[in-house]
Amino acid sequence: MTVPVFTLGQLAERLGATLRGAAGKAISGLATLQEAGPDQLSFLANPQYRKYLSDCRAGAVLLTAADADSYGGDALIVANPYLAYAQLSHLFDRKPQSLAGVHATALVAADAQVDASASIGAYAVIESGARIAAGVTIGAHCVIGARSLIGEGGWLAPRVTLYHDVRIGRRVVIQSGAVIGGEGFGFANQKGVWQKIAQIGGVVIGDDVEVGANTTIDRGALADTLIGNGVKLDNQIMIAHNVQIGDNTAMAGCAGISGSTKIGKNCMIAGGVGMVGHIEVCDGVFVTGMTMVTRSITEPGSYSSGTAMQPAGEWRKSAARIRQLDDMARRLQQLEKQLAAVTSSGNASSDA
Amino acid sequence: MTVPVFTLGQLAERLGATLRGAAGKAISGLATLQEAGPDQLSFLANPQYRKYLSDCRAGAVLLTAADADSYGGDALIVANPYLAYAQLSHLFDRKPQSLAGVHATALVAADAQVDASASIGAYAVIESGARIAAGVTIGAHCVIGARSLIGEGGWLAPRVTLYHDVRIGRRVVIQSGAVIGGEGFGFANQKGVWQKIAQIGGVVIGDDVEVGANTTIDRGALADTLIGNGVKLDNQIMIAHNVQIGDNTAMAGCAGISGSTKIGKNCMIAGGVGMVGHIEVCDGVFVTGMTMVTRSITEPGSYSSGTAMQPAGEWRKSAARIRQLDDMARRLQQLEKQLAAVTSSGNASSDA
Amino acid sequence: MTVPVFTLGQLAERLGATLRGAAGKAISGLATLQEAGPDQLSFLANPQYRKYLSDCRAGAVLLTAADADSYGGDALIVANPYLAYAQLSHLFDRKPQSLAGVHATALVAADAQVDASASIGAYAVIESGARIAAGVTIGAHCVIGARSLIGEGGWLAPRVTLYHDVRIGRRVVIQSGAVIGGEGFGFANQKGVWQKIAQIGGVVIGDDVEVGANTTIDRGALADTLIGNGVKLDNQIMIAHNVQIGDNTAMAGCAGISGSTKIGKNCMIAGGVGMVGHIEVCDGVFVTGMTMVTRSITEPGSYSSGTAMQPAGEWRKSAARIRQLDDMARRLQQLEKQLAAVTSSGNASSDA
Repeated sequence: MTVPVFTLGQLAERLGATLRGAAGKAISGLATLQEAGPDQLSFLANPQYRKYLSDCRAGAVLLTAADADSYGGDALIVANPYLAYAQLSHLFDRKPQSLAGVHATALVAADAQVDASASIGAYAVIESGARIAAGVTIGAHCVIGARSLIGEGGWLAPRVTLYHDVRIGRRVVIQSGAVIGGEGFGFANQKGVWQKIAQIGGVVIGDDVEVGANTTIDRGALADTLIGNGVKLDNQIMIAHNVQIGDNTAMAGCAGISGSTKIGKNCMIAGGVGMVGHIEVCDGVFVTGMTMVTRSITEPGSYSSGTAMQPAGEWRKSAARIRQLDDMARRLQQLEKQLAAVTSSGNASSDA
Repeated sequence: MTVPVFTLGQLAERLGATLRGAAGKAISGLATLQEAGPDQLSFLANPQYRKYLSDCRAGAVLLTAADADSYGGDALIVANPYLAYAQLSHLFDRKPQSLAGVHATALVAADAQVDASASIGAYAVIESGARIAAGVTIGAHCVIGARSLIGEGGWLAPRVTLYHDVRIGRRVVIQSGAVIGGEGFGFANQKGVWQKIAQIGGVVIGDDVEVGANTTIDRGALADTLIGNGVKLDNQIMIAHNVQIGDNTAMAGCAGISGSTKIGKNCMIAGGVGMVGHIEVCDGVFVTGMTMVTRSITEPGSYSSGTAMQPAGEWRKSAARIRQLDDMARRLQQLEKQLAAVTSSGNASSDA
Repeated sequence: MTVPVFTLGQLAERLGATLRGAAGKAISGLATLQEAGPDQLSFLANPQYRKYLSDCRAGAVLLTAADADSYGGDALIVANPYLAYAQLSHLFDRKPQSLAGVHATALVAADAQVDASASIGAYAVIESGARIAAGVTIGAHCVIGARSLIGEGGWLAPRVTLYHDVRIGRRVVIQSGAVIGGEGFGFANQKGVWQKIAQIGGVVIGDDVEVGANTTIDRGALADTLIGNGVKLDNQIMIAHNVQIGDNTAMAGCAGISGSTKIGKNCMIAGGVGMVGHIEVCDGVFVTGMTMVTRSITEPGSYSSGTAMQPAGEWRKSAARIRQLDDMARRLQQLEKQLAAVTSSGNASSDA
């Protein structure tokens, strides 16, 4: 695969950026300020990295006007360098493009609908009644269950499972190993034995969603599990049945959301967060890593739980003390009473 | 796929329920009290939802006799409405049924045994010496390793891996992406370098077990990893080598059980729980979400660890204070001594 | 598959062990001290199990010279019995051996290179420009992306995904369901909407690495994600983009490492540990299970966080008290001041 090459002028035009420097300079890649060479473009987004600007060897740097003033090299001046980098990154992506058409080894049910512009990979299985819209890529070894829908421009990596009756919006990206529409964990206990409850709801996923590698999203027990527009889910996430996630919420790896919990819009849920079931988290909430969320959150803001890391020896003492905390609190209260008594008695004696 | 329709009378007969209302009323689905329409059946299991009964538009409701007294609409009266719902749920499941037979693209080893009533999906691979019993469904793209056995009535979703020498009981359900019999994490350290230990045990899974999507169960190092009858494992769970889980224990998503740990019968392990290796948990234990289990549990009951969620600013203070806890405990003890001295000296002076 | 049988003499020779007993005795397996029968070899590595030696029925036991003195049965005397067991374990592994060659159903791109001694399983897909070295086994249903490389002697279980441009060293073992080179979680926020950043880096994995079942290793955003030589990763681990892991570090199940974090050599990261992004952990660090690592670690040693498990009733009290800790600390300080005042006033009065 040949490496794409663009001139600085072409890149400036794409971004609507102000070009400072040689419009004809060839750029064949992106790299960090520290690593970029003379044929690569870099960017300064985090002020902490401003210190690397002086020694930067990049062919050009994406900079704000303010930062460009203190930099002598070639630059593309933009309002938001990180966003500009995001936009240009796709030009240099070496991800293979799939050709339209159904691979000879793919199995497409007679009554499934596959748009002529879609690409169906090797050994993919498209079951009865499924519909694959225009421009969709289905990777090798994917299984698309009965009556499931994938909207325009979707991209599924190899080895993705959609069970039956999963409806996915437009431009949705699903990484390898993800499982969508698995049977939620529903059982009724009959004298100690668990009786399975059929999971008859589906999954509905909005537009512009990303689902990470090996993430699982279970189908609803009765109604559908709902993932809003623009939601971004990282790898290894577990979304249980009947969860609802609002538009543009992002969730990092290994988070787990229990059944029927509703998360609002524009939330950020960090890695390893766990939420119990049947709670509601309002819009605009940021939950820090590994937080245990056991109750609803009704005010926007940042929330945390957990204890700070310590050397193991100190930690053992802290952990032991936490188990004594209730006792300590009672003794503290007792001391306050006793001291108040002493002080008042002391006052009395000094009065005497 | 046509929606199944049953009359209230048919449903009452299936459950052995007392029918109150129109026996001929058509029911074509299940829904919650709030969402059910006139052609749907609902149920009241959680007393918190009793308030929704008055405005319920359901065609009929599964109710206890006591609840039925305060409800005017049609009802199916049963001892346990949730269990009745579980039983009826399967009637309305739109999960596609597989046809008996081996798909033309499936690869079955010459010496593997597949019952004529089993269904082997597209591109499935059944290796040498494997045995697939009557009524088993193997989804597309499953790989069944050498000499592995799947008992009667099992159901494997697409994309499940069984390594070699995995023995699975009857009526076991395995969701997509699950991996059973992977090589456990066993290494001997030789001067800083890890030497792999071949994992020569297998996995034995009982009857009526469910294994969730992307859950992994490793094979034993020497003896077998053992999963008892009726065990229910949710998604994204990690069961390490030589773990033993007792009958009818249920475990929620993202739990991780380290090597050689034994969990008893009828336990409930909530989501995100982690257990260290080589411990024992007795029967009848409930462990709440994200609890870190670092020692054996010898008494039935509920167990927890972790700290409650706080706004991040308050949490930072708490987390800092936890690191001071040992110091605080010592100062508290010191204060108690000092105050005792003051009090006794105070008493002495008042005696004087 | 016939069970392999070795004589004690043969095993002694392989290990360079001192044989005490019948050189011709047939050994057909390995087992623990408690479970081994007369045709099995056992070992004593953990002193806690020395008590099982007296009743041991094993055909022979791997022992140190010191332990052999107090054991009457046949023995293979070695410096490190656990390491000796690790070495012999491979003799008794019933894992099926794959034959060299490309399975008739495997799809190998015209410009991919597959060594004649490699084994490519059923339905495997090898994309354009990929290179598979000598002695590599690729399991059924694996997908090897464009230009990815697998070094000599590698072993991939069925159902492994390598995206494009993933470079893997020699003798690397990858368990089923693992996904390597998935697109890292990179998005730029534009007025509340997340814009995807193409992940144009790759993944580079060293020699002698093991990757567990359903573990995910994301490709780099710009530069590569790097896994050193001899690194062992258990199941269900999440390695985010641009993470670097040093040689011979081992990480247990369900750990999650956020983007751009660097972990040193010879570290041990226990199960369920979470690390935030952009930190550095030095060589020789041991992090205990479920620890939340929110800052860099610059000194070798053991580190922990989290609270100890308690009965749920007691835990609720502790958890509530933790939220009062800052208040308790202030009250404790106040008491100390007050008591100091009382004591000095008391002293004054006793002076008087």
